Amino acid sequence: MSAQLQPPSGEAGPAAPPLLLRRDEGGGVHVLTLNRPAARNALSLAMLDALAAAFAEIAADPAVRAVVLAAEGPVFSAGHDLRELTVRRADPDRGRAFFETTMTRCAEVMQAITALPQPVIAAVQGVATAAGCQLVATCDLAVASTEARFCTPGVDIGLFCSTPAVALSRAVPPKPAMEMLLLGEMIPAEEARRIHLVNRVVPPEQVMPTALDLARRIAARSALTIRLGKRNFYRQLGRPLGEAYACSSAVMVENLLAEDAAEGIGAFLGKRKPVWRDR
Amino acid sequence: MSAQLQPPSGEAGPAAPPLLLRRDEGGGVHVLTLNRPAARNALSLAMLDALAAAFAEIAADPAVRAVVLAAEGPVFSAGHDLRELTVRRADPDRGRAFFETTMTRCAEVMQAITALPQPVIAAVQGVATAAGCQLVATCDLAVASTEARFCTPGVDIGLFCSTPAVALSRAVPPKPAMEMLLLGEMIPAEEARRIHLVNRVVPPEQVMPTALDLARRIAARSALTIRLGKRNFYRQLGRPLGEAYACSSAVMVENLLAEDAAEGIGAFLGKRKPVWRDR
Amino acid sequence: MSAQLQPPSGEAGPAAPPLLLRRDEGGGVHVLTLNRPAARNALSLAMLDALAAAFAEIAADPAVRAVVLAAEGPVFSAGHDLRELTVRRADPDRGRAFFETTMTRCAEVMQAITALPQPVIAAVQGVATAAGCQLVATCDLAVASTEARFCTPGVDIGLFCSTPAVALSRAVPPKPAMEMLLLGEMIPAEEARRIHLVNRVVPPEQVMPTALDLARRIAARSALTIRLGKRNFYRQLGRPLGEAYACSSAVMVENLLAEDAAEGIGAFLGKRKPVWRDR
Repeated sequence: MSAQLQPPSGEAGPAAPPLLLRRDEGGGVHVLTLNRPAARNALSLAMLDALAAAFAEIAADPAVRAVVLAAEGPVFSAGHDLRELTVRRADPDRGRAFFETTMTRCAEVMQAITALPQPVIAAVQGVATAAGCQLVATCDLAVASTEARFCTPGVDIGLFCSTPAVALSRAVPPKPAMEMLLLGEMIPAEEARRIHLVNRVVPPEQVMPTALDLARRIAARSALTIRLGKRNFYRQLGRPLGEAYACSSAVMVENLLAEDAAEGIGAFLGKRKPVWRDR
Repeated sequence: MSAQLQPPSGEAGPAAPPLLLRRDEGGGVHVLTLNRPAARNALSLAMLDALAAAFAEIAADPAVRAVVLAAEGPVFSAGHDLRELTVRRADPDRGRAFFETTMTRCAEVMQAITALPQPVIAAVQGVATAAGCQLVATCDLAVASTEARFCTPGVDIGLFCSTPAVALSRAVPPKPAMEMLLLGEMIPAEEARRIHLVNRVVPPEQVMPTALDLARRIAARSALTIRLGKRNFYRQLGRPLGEAYACSSAVMVENLLAEDAAEGIGAFLGKRKPVWRDR
Repeated sequence: MSAQLQPPSGEAGPAAPPLLLRRDEGGGVHVLTLNRPAARNALSLAMLDALAAAFAEIAADPAVRAVVLAAEGPVFSAGHDLRELTVRRADPDRGRAFFETTMTRCAEVMQAITALPQPVIAAVQGVATAAGCQLVATCDLAVASTEARFCTPGVDIGLFCSTPAVALSRAVPPKPAMEMLLLGEMIPAEEARRIHLVNRVVPPEQVMPTALDLARRIAARSALTIRLGKRNFYRQLGRPLGEAYACSSAVMVENLLAEDAAEGIGAFLGKRKPVWRDR
């Protein structure tokens, strides 16, 4: 079963392949694949629109339990589409409106990943740069190939990776985040793990199997439980301790009163397998 | 010298062993030991009450300079008492009031550790799961056995570890914290150190000696100094930089004007050992 | 070319060497060297004044593109000048006014580094303790010698490192930060890298060449780009995600509309080297 998100009319001819592929792996796991390898999976406005549409659909689809975000070709994503941005410098406003639209949409996509009820796992097979690296930093979990590399090279083109820095600085401690941002160097996958940008580093052929395995394990749990937990995780982060405990304790009570917790705890105490209602 | 905190009447017969042991190791170091090994040191409401009472006593006791939080048996703590919670599902409110009481009390205990004037060092000899892992994340320092393991497995029972996540996400960067919360896997002690959940990993027989050594070194310092410093550390965390410096600079001035700083700095300049007043 | 910041009159005789050396390495890289090795580069009020003056000058000097903060002698900096502070205990106010002045000035210097348009790279050749460790934690990047060591030993003299804790707890996760603050132990350079206090650890003779190399690479980029990016990095940190994206997206648009981004992106697309206007 497969749904393909088409590029908006006008961006590509009718024969053009879709920018983004969505594949149902079964068991509630869906794979979104950035599918513009010739353009290094650049985040053009059309690609951002396709991602926004895909996440909006997924958010509303209770059959989806976990998402893997993958990419075709040697590059995971090279970030913003510099050609598309440059063309708009000829606009009467020198591109301002288009730049604003693109940046706003990009920030919306990133926040949609964080707000998504389902966890999103990046499966990084290749190079992730700039807003491509931001995508990885934004996902809840990330699996990287030993050959993957990460980079925020905006300083090389006169455009500091200021929005990628938002996600990067929330995943990675300040000194290594600043090192990536100020120097723009490629860092290897193991270094990305050391600084907590990715969770796991595996051989190239294990990237998708590992990401799918994590996704399946998440998808096998109670969706309500995952949804309550993910939402609260990001909501309590960065709040004062007392407020964080107040909102999280309320979530625990709500979760405890849900059927799935009664079933899960009952199954655990009875030494049987739980059968989730909300799955 | 030893004080034993008794379980509240009604929870256990008069012959039942105390839930929590408090032992004075001398030199201002006190050891609190979770002592319900047959129940995997579950944080029943009685255990939470015992912890709350113990920390309230310690907070008011200037003779206590540092606390080691340890546990009897192979499990440090398995978190909430699922049997106790489940029994209350028969209440007319399906347990809501009891769940609220338990979660509120648990959050109070965790915040009491952070607010305690004395540093608290977890001595983790075994498995710490769910709210047991939260206890470790909450302590100021943690020493773990090479055989200790850590886990937030709420997803396995339909109850996301949302309150453990508060402490975990303040100790551990987001990606590895989310990995623990979404997958519920046991992580070994060395991995817990890599993600900054524990400070030291030592052979099993060295857990208590190491924790006691750290506690004695802290207890040998000026209590006023430790108290001012610990309180300010958590107060300034997460505040904007200017506010953090404003409150911390005021604490430095207050600390400098205290007798112990005059003594300590004088001793340092005079190349002699300081004699603390507030110890 | 070299500018030497003189100590304020009264602190040292006319033959005394300057507290702080400033050397222009060419290409927009300036090196500030703490030059009071006999006093272990203590941050006396005069030294803090010299640093404040130097950073104020540099902030206003568009020819400076990157700063290396280094030190003469075996100690990077031992922190506050305890002799100077102690003398003021004889003041009618027991030193309060002087302590307040010193702490305020110290916090200003630290915040001046964060607010400086140019990145600051610590080149740590030796021991950095207390406010000296705070300096390292505050710099945007830090290169350490294999022989460098780090320490916040205020607990040994009855004066908790409460202001160093502000910078330390923003660079380093809470558990290892608390370990340094409560125990006051020297930690080796590799451990400092593990906890993200420094970026790179190199042999002693490579500390300055490495720091200068990083500085030169930063200085070769568009100054506007670096300035916008550094400022926004610290501004968005710690803000709620939506606010962080709102301010960072606005910075991206501003940056995109600047000449240097047009030049940099154009050069990248045209496969030529960019020529920065703002450099």
